Amino acid sequence: MDKDSYTLCEKLVPKSYVQQGQNAKSIHQNQIRHLLEQRRIPEDGWDDQTIELFLSELAIMDSNNFPDNCGVGEREARIYSSLVSRRHFRLGHGIGRSGEITAVQPKAAGSSLIMTLTNSLALHAIRLSGIQASSCFVVPMATGMSVALSLLSLKQRRPKAQYVLWPRIDQKSCIKSVVTSGFKLVVIENVREGDELRTNLEEIQKKIEELGAENILCILTTTSCFAPRVPDRLEEIGEICKSQDIPHVVNNAYGLQCSKCTHLIQQASRSRVDVFVQSTDKNFMVPVGGSIIAGFDDQLIQHISKCYPGRASSSPSTDLLITLLSMGVKGYKDLLKERKTNYKTLQTRLSECAQKHGEHLLSTPHNGISMGMSLQTFQCNTEENVTELGSKLFTRLVSGTRVIPSDGKKSEICGQTFSSFGAHCNEYGTPYLTAAAAIGMTSRDIDLFISRLDKVMSKCTKTSDPKKLQS
Amino acid sequence: MDKDSYTLCEKLVPKSYVQQGQNAKSIHQNQIRHLLEQRRIPEDGWDDQTIELFLSELAIMDSNNFPDNCGVGEREARIYSSLVSRRHFRLGHGIGRSGEITAVQPKAAGSSLIMTLTNSLALHAIRLSGIQASSCFVVPMATGMSVALSLLSLKQRRPKAQYVLWPRIDQKSCIKSVVTSGFKLVVIENVREGDELRTNLEEIQKKIEELGAENILCILTTTSCFAPRVPDRLEEIGEICKSQDIPHVVNNAYGLQCSKCTHLIQQASRSRVDVFVQSTDKNFMVPVGGSIIAGFDDQLIQHISKCYPGRASSSPSTDLLITLLSMGVKGYKDLLKERKTNYKTLQTRLSECAQKHGEHLLSTPHNGISMGMSLQTFQCNTEENVTELGSKLFTRLVSGTRVIPSDGKKSEICGQTFSSFGAHCNEYGTPYLTAAAAIGMTSRDIDLFISRLDKVMSKCTKTSDPKKLQS
Amino acid sequence: MDKDSYTLCEKLVPKSYVQQGQNAKSIHQNQIRHLLEQRRIPEDGWDDQTIELFLSELAIMDSNNFPDNCGVGEREARIYSSLVSRRHFRLGHGIGRSGEITAVQPKAAGSSLIMTLTNSLALHAIRLSGIQASSCFVVPMATGMSVALSLLSLKQRRPKAQYVLWPRIDQKSCIKSVVTSGFKLVVIENVREGDELRTNLEEIQKKIEELGAENILCILTTTSCFAPRVPDRLEEIGEICKSQDIPHVVNNAYGLQCSKCTHLIQQASRSRVDVFVQSTDKNFMVPVGGSIIAGFDDQLIQHISKCYPGRASSSPSTDLLITLLSMGVKGYKDLLKERKTNYKTLQTRLSECAQKHGEHLLSTPHNGISMGMSLQTFQCNTEENVTELGSKLFTRLVSGTRVIPSDGKKSEICGQTFSSFGAHCNEYGTPYLTAAAAIGMTSRDIDLFISRLDKVMSKCTKTSDPKKLQS
Amino acid sequence: MDKDSYTLCEKLVPKSYVQQGQNAKSIHQNQIRHLLEQRRIPEDGWDDQTIELFLSELAIMDSNNFPDNCGVGEREARIYSSLVSRRHFRLGHGIGRSGEITAVQPKAAGSSLIMTLTNSLALHAIRLSGIQASSCFVVPMATGMSVALSLLSLKQRRPKAQYVLWPRIDQKSCIKSVVTSGFKLVVIENVREGDELRTNLEEIQKKIEELGAENILCILTTTSCFAPRVPDRLEEIGEICKSQDIPHVVNNAYGLQCSKCTHLIQQASRSRVDVFVQSTDKNFMVPVGGSIIAGFDDQLIQHISKCYPGRASSSPSTDLLITLLSMGVKGYKDLLKERKTNYKTLQTRLSECAQKHGEHLLSTPHNGISMGMSLQTFQCNTEENVTELGSKLFTRLVSGTRVIPSDGKKSEICGQTFSSFGAHCNEYGTPYLTAAAAIGMTSRDIDLFISRLDKVMSKCTKTSDPKKLQS
Repeated sequence: MDKDSYTLCEKLVPKSYVQQGQNAKSIHQNQIRHLLEQRRIPEDGWDDQTIELFLSELAIMDSNNFPDNCGVGEREARIYSSLVSRRHFRLGHGIGRSGEITAVQPKAAGSSLIMTLTNSLALHAIRLSGIQASSCFVVPMATGMSVALSLLSLKQRRPKAQYVLWPRIDQKSCIKSVVTSGFKLVVIENVREGDELRTNLEEIQKKIEELGAENILCILTTTSCFAPRVPDRLEEIGEICKSQDIPHVVNNAYGLQCSKCTHLIQQASRSRVDVFVQSTDKNFMVPVGGSIIAGFDDQLIQHISKCYPGRASSSPSTDLLITLLSMGVKGYKDLLKERKTNYKTLQTRLSECAQKHGEHLLSTPHNGISMGMSLQTFQCNTEENVTELGSKLFTRLVSGTRVIPSDGKKSEICGQTFSSFGAHCNEYGTPYLTAAAAIGMTSRDIDLFISRLDKVMSKCTKTSDPKKLQS
Repeated sequence: MDKDSYTLCEKLVPKSYVQQGQNAKSIHQNQIRHLLEQRRIPEDGWDDQTIELFLSELAIMDSNNFPDNCGVGEREARIYSSLVSRRHFRLGHGIGRSGEITAVQPKAAGSSLIMTLTNSLALHAIRLSGIQASSCFVVPMATGMSVALSLLSLKQRRPKAQYVLWPRIDQKSCIKSVVTSGFKLVVIENVREGDELRTNLEEIQKKIEELGAENILCILTTTSCFAPRVPDRLEEIGEICKSQDIPHVVNNAYGLQCSKCTHLIQQASRSRVDVFVQSTDKNFMVPVGGSIIAGFDDQLIQHISKCYPGRASSSPSTDLLITLLSMGVKGYKDLLKERKTNYKTLQTRLSECAQKHGEHLLSTPHNGISMGMSLQTFQCNTEENVTELGSKLFTRLVSGTRVIPSDGKKSEICGQTFSSFGAHCNEYGTPYLTAAAAIGMTSRDIDLFISRLDKVMSKCTKTSDPKKLQS
Repeated sequence: MDKDSYTLCEKLVPKSYVQQGQNAKSIHQNQIRHLLEQRRIPEDGWDDQTIELFLSELAIMDSNNFPDNCGVGEREARIYSSLVSRRHFRLGHGIGRSGEITAVQPKAAGSSLIMTLTNSLALHAIRLSGIQASSCFVVPMATGMSVALSLLSLKQRRPKAQYVLWPRIDQKSCIKSVVTSGFKLVVIENVREGDELRTNLEEIQKKIEELGAENILCILTTTSCFAPRVPDRLEEIGEICKSQDIPHVVNNAYGLQCSKCTHLIQQASRSRVDVFVQSTDKNFMVPVGGSIIAGFDDQLIQHISKCYPGRASSSPSTDLLITLLSMGVKGYKDLLKERKTNYKTLQTRLSECAQKHGEHLLSTPHNGISMGMSLQTFQCNTEENVTELGSKLFTRLVSGTRVIPSDGKKSEICGQTFSSFGAHCNEYGTPYLTAAAAIGMTSRDIDLFISRLDKVMSKCTKTSDPKKLQS
Repeated sequence: MDKDSYTLCEKLVPKSYVQQGQNAKSIHQNQIRHLLEQRRIPEDGWDDQTIELFLSELAIMDSNNFPDNCGVGEREARIYSSLVSRRHFRLGHGIGRSGEITAVQPKAAGSSLIMTLTNSLALHAIRLSGIQASSCFVVPMATGMSVALSLLSLKQRRPKAQYVLWPRIDQKSCIKSVVTSGFKLVVIENVREGDELRTNLEEIQKKIEELGAENILCILTTTSCFAPRVPDRLEEIGEICKSQDIPHVVNNAYGLQCSKCTHLIQQASRSRVDVFVQSTDKNFMVPVGGSIIAGFDDQLIQHISKCYPGRASSSPSTDLLITLLSMGVKGYKDLLKERKTNYKTLQTRLSECAQKHGEHLLSTPHNGISMGMSLQTFQCNTEENVTELGSKLFTRLVSGTRVIPSDGKKSEICGQTFSSFGAHCNEYGTPYLTAAAAIGMTSRDIDLFISRLDKVMSKCTKTSDPKKLQS
């Protein structure tokens, strides 16, 4: 309602009551104005009422909602189903243009504002997480496809290059992002240090010499990963990249939530990090489907965004925008703190449970999210016994654990052969189970997990053969 | 409610009333069962109540909604904001797995069903539109990025190839999809036949000879396009592709709604069409963000889906599923029919308006969606006059028209130089304005457009210089 | 967004796009301002976007939504469930105050505006329907309870009166509204004229003389009713009321939709009509639960509203407000016109069906909504046969028909004995079935009804005994 | 989905995943079945997903949602606006029938179930609150109208009675409920005991003798009230009612949340309590509009429900049902406990604040919800100063406090003259301010209130005249 409307209200309701209502309205409006001004996550999270108000204000600005619009184009954001329309707050134009995913659309000022603001807020979130990046954009593709886009964009600046050096991380989407982009994957096997699997820096150096720096598109490193693998040695790799003039792309999938990962990227950026990519769902508790492509060089990030052919769904941006507005800086920081606490609790509890069953927690101090528990006493049995444990947990509604047998089985992924795929190395030695303390986990999750794991282990251990254990 | 619940209801409400309620329930259930059985668009559209019921049944099947779940993974589909959760019907896991975008997820049976069903219904929709494709999948990326993915996938089967032959269509996302994928764009300039711009087949033949068939990744043709360009000569190109063993990729962006386009693909498939890609928003009235990658060879389509690295947003699939269920076969056919009628009406009305102002409709019988009206009498003026008309229409809330000056201006797109970019040829001769009759257009749109255009032309013509016109 | 916010948007999106968005916003705002100014149903219905925007603007004005409010009262409109909160658009304070149902609340300017506006729009709707009432208010009680409130209010002005004269209408809630209010019901049996049951004016006169005008609280007449009863002779009764100084209360339950009923009230108002009460759900297609108490004397209507003790649910007002805004004057008029057409169609079709089965349509020209079809050929059978027909229709999902046997059975309602309750008279002579053409009915309803009735009658007739029929 | 549907799902998604989804579904179904079986508030609250599922199952059972229904009645629950339909979960038939508000409707099994279940759950809630009532029903009218209905119902059993004895409570709706019902209000002035205002039992006895027990419809007592008035002496009044055979009606408006009030009713029921009425919004945090009429004699409560003429809105029942399901027994108990704690905190904090400003907390130990703080040092000023404090708090967004001057002003309410209306007695002696700790209050409310009060008092005190203070 505009000023005149409020004045008209005073004919129906006493002025002082209307005044209070108008004041309340201006509080919402101030929040919105402040957001447009600062383009940062608000200190205190917004309530849903303000968020919905804001989104409906934006929706009104899109041409498909103009009461008087007539559309004679091939794409007018007409929405057939009212169910669909409602769930998108009546926004239909998506983000970006034919030209570029970060371009604004003449037909869709509201959608364009969502895109622009979300990118600003995402950058703020990255900084709050500990990385002083200078530029980023949200793209409605999961991490794998976003890494692929980044690689393809780099290719334009490095036309001769065809190799991607890749410290092994056993995730299919990483491999695919390289292979699908048309590059040759050069696997750098990890080395075991204590219980940890770490980057083999010497091997990297050797490969660079062997292939020639100019033929290497980039080194693709990983931060967040399943224990006992730990984040790559980003700082040292950054140094190598700098000295050899090789781009450095970091897969920071769910690393934004963990200061161990973000610190690494921040440190490595002093030498060289070109792009780092992270998932929106894993770091910000939104549905799967978006990622943030970020970096320290505005022009490079813009170049990548310009390589994206055409417009795209605004759904992941909208989800992220709502979520960051709803969290506020405080809410986000609280979640990060809570995650850290949960990590420690999970460590303690899992360690206790391990000891009770004659196992131990793997010592992986460099991994701040995932942890592993040995399953040695199950080793004597057939491989089935090990994976049986995983499936027993699955039927007991424990999701997210992984049981890794130590079997040295060969598998072929995208034409590449791997031993013990899933273990991040050819032969880890012992089978183990992983668990993670990710953002949004609750203490109830930990309690349920430990009690169910305890029950399952009690049942499984009984089937093992004590004689074989001694040998 | 299960059987026992209904029996319990009979203690509270007379049996015969409960019986009627139960019957009504079973009608909904039968619709759902029939859908799961047939995996086709229902003949009659579903009402929102049934659709919501179905989606909530599916959501219940995802682990993040299990009342008793405990999550210790890095990705548990926890959703922070209830606003976000509601708009996704509490679905959070997206579609696909690390392995493949069409893979089912252990944690998310419901989301997996959405993905699978949507792909089946999309195939049905394609067939209803007139193309007897054998396989397809919905991908949460717009057409450009989907074409890029298709090209990259073809590359794996054709490692030597580096050229994409491309009958010119002046859309940046097409060019980017080729260039970003790392291929060399070979532009085939169109030839003018009457008012139409059509494919230069001889030039294609010449280029194949020049470059060598084995070095050509594919011919990338286009169906739906702005007049006076018309859909490419798909049948003849299909023949060439077949004889020379070159893949044939069709950009069918908004062609599914037009039998002229679908007929071409169907006919060309007798010789060779490998993949055809279309947008979900432009053909099915959902928000921007998805496309359908389809073809006639299951294995090839599967191969492309396997090249997608990782999982993805389920939002575009969900939108399409809701919309197709809501339309039903009848609703979709009605929309197609209505569009055809609107096309004819628009043609008649625009022609009348053109004549009134001393202009004429371009004769482009091969283009069934878009049409052009000459703007000759504006030619004498500066270029500003021509584009002024476009911006006048914009401020009068006419969206979707394009005014194309005839200026031969050079532009650089992705390192490639084009003359008169936007005109699909170096020199068309006359400036013109385009308008399209796309799916979902209403007769009100046409009325408003013609009356506003008429007003704008009346104003603009007056500013022209009659002397220059004579020369 | 305020002006400053739009200016800030221009830093993110080109000014001309923002301008268009702002223009679109002002169209919505103008609609709202116009509503507050005119307090009439808008000519053209509003779209849901504007309605939701308006409701959220109003919700913001209620204290429970003030971002900074602190509540230390016993009633602060805290809403526990977010599901509940959402469905009420976050409004919780209801309407009215301790003092009066039409009073504004200091804590709830928004809810107060809803109440005030709805009352104004309801008055407009009544006038559109043909009654030039001067005042009305919406009360969240169904017709029966609202009639009771009206009677109790009249009592305060007529302390001696204890009788309510009531031309018989066989609806329990009418009887209860009188008896519960503590008055004595004086039944005026109807007289049969042709097929119609009409008011017995002589009997009314006789009763007034017998009981004394000053002892009579009011004459309670009825407009809308099931055929073959027809609306009471309101004009003549109005004359009697005027001459004898007896209040005249009209139960206009679903009569607003029918010009025959509204014309009667309008005409009678020239002599005397004090209050007329109608249901919101039956006249305006909202859920059950509200009614409108209206009249031609502001003070009397205000007096009734002041008699309502305390505040009340705003839900029926909100439903009516949304609905009238959504319909617009045009939409409402169209519905009235469509209903009239449906009435005629139903009459024709039902008459044909009756003739086919040896029955006939009762001739009740004074009833514009309901009609009856004789069931004579079923008479020979037991009473079960007649009601069997009703229950057969029920199981075939025909709702709303009533089968009235002609059995003269006695029933006791609120201590009063009635013969053939349901038939509006002691002995109508033939059994019959009723059907109505109410607002919102579709031609599909008519088609389904006739075809199902035809089937049911075919089956039922066969069971009748032809011998008895001859006698 | 039925069993067959799940089996069909197994063709699309591995059986074990479907199995888990089906298990999750059955958990929801078990919750629903258990509810229908027990008809009690579930121990643990339901999540929104289950509640929505349940409501949509119920909606499906109503005839207006039958996919195949044809309606030829005058009331078919057609809903015009989809906004309205959605907010009522597509339920339109309301509750009750022409006959009775607790009757089930043939057309609306789902709505009938809502009504029946809500009544059962409300009874459970009353018992959890400490009153072992035997019967109750939810009625979509606020407390005042519900008291009126109760009085009118009693009248049918006590035709001669015309007086209502009423220990003074200065709330207009109470007075109106008596006067509107047509009864004579006999005011029993309270007596001051310490700071408290308590029931004058002797006066009651005297009035009974004076008027004759058989002429008295009932004694209408009050539990929850603003301090310094305290709940009536229900036990003693119950004894009087029992011995004199006078009905006892208790206005328990917001007393269900306070064990002091519920204990009184429970104790008084040993002698005599006929009906006690409470608000749904004030006790259960739902929007204004419903109340619960309860008692210890099934037949009496049924009789009252049968006196309600016609059907009614299901909105308040639906709100209450959702809320009680959402709270669960645990949630409700937690709220009661939290309220008690808040009461104590508020007492302490307010007392401190009072002392700081030279005032004191009134000692009203029998009132467990509301408390008063003296405003003596403001007395010297004009009356405006006292109410100025109230309005200053209002503009500082403190809602719910009341400032009661001590001015002995006369007012007329429904024809009855009261001195110092609002103070519950003719002359309390000192002005004071009240505040309440009601269900749902948060500690933030207390903090904000005390700090704002402190500021306001600091400002107001300064304006007082110290000379006058001394006198």
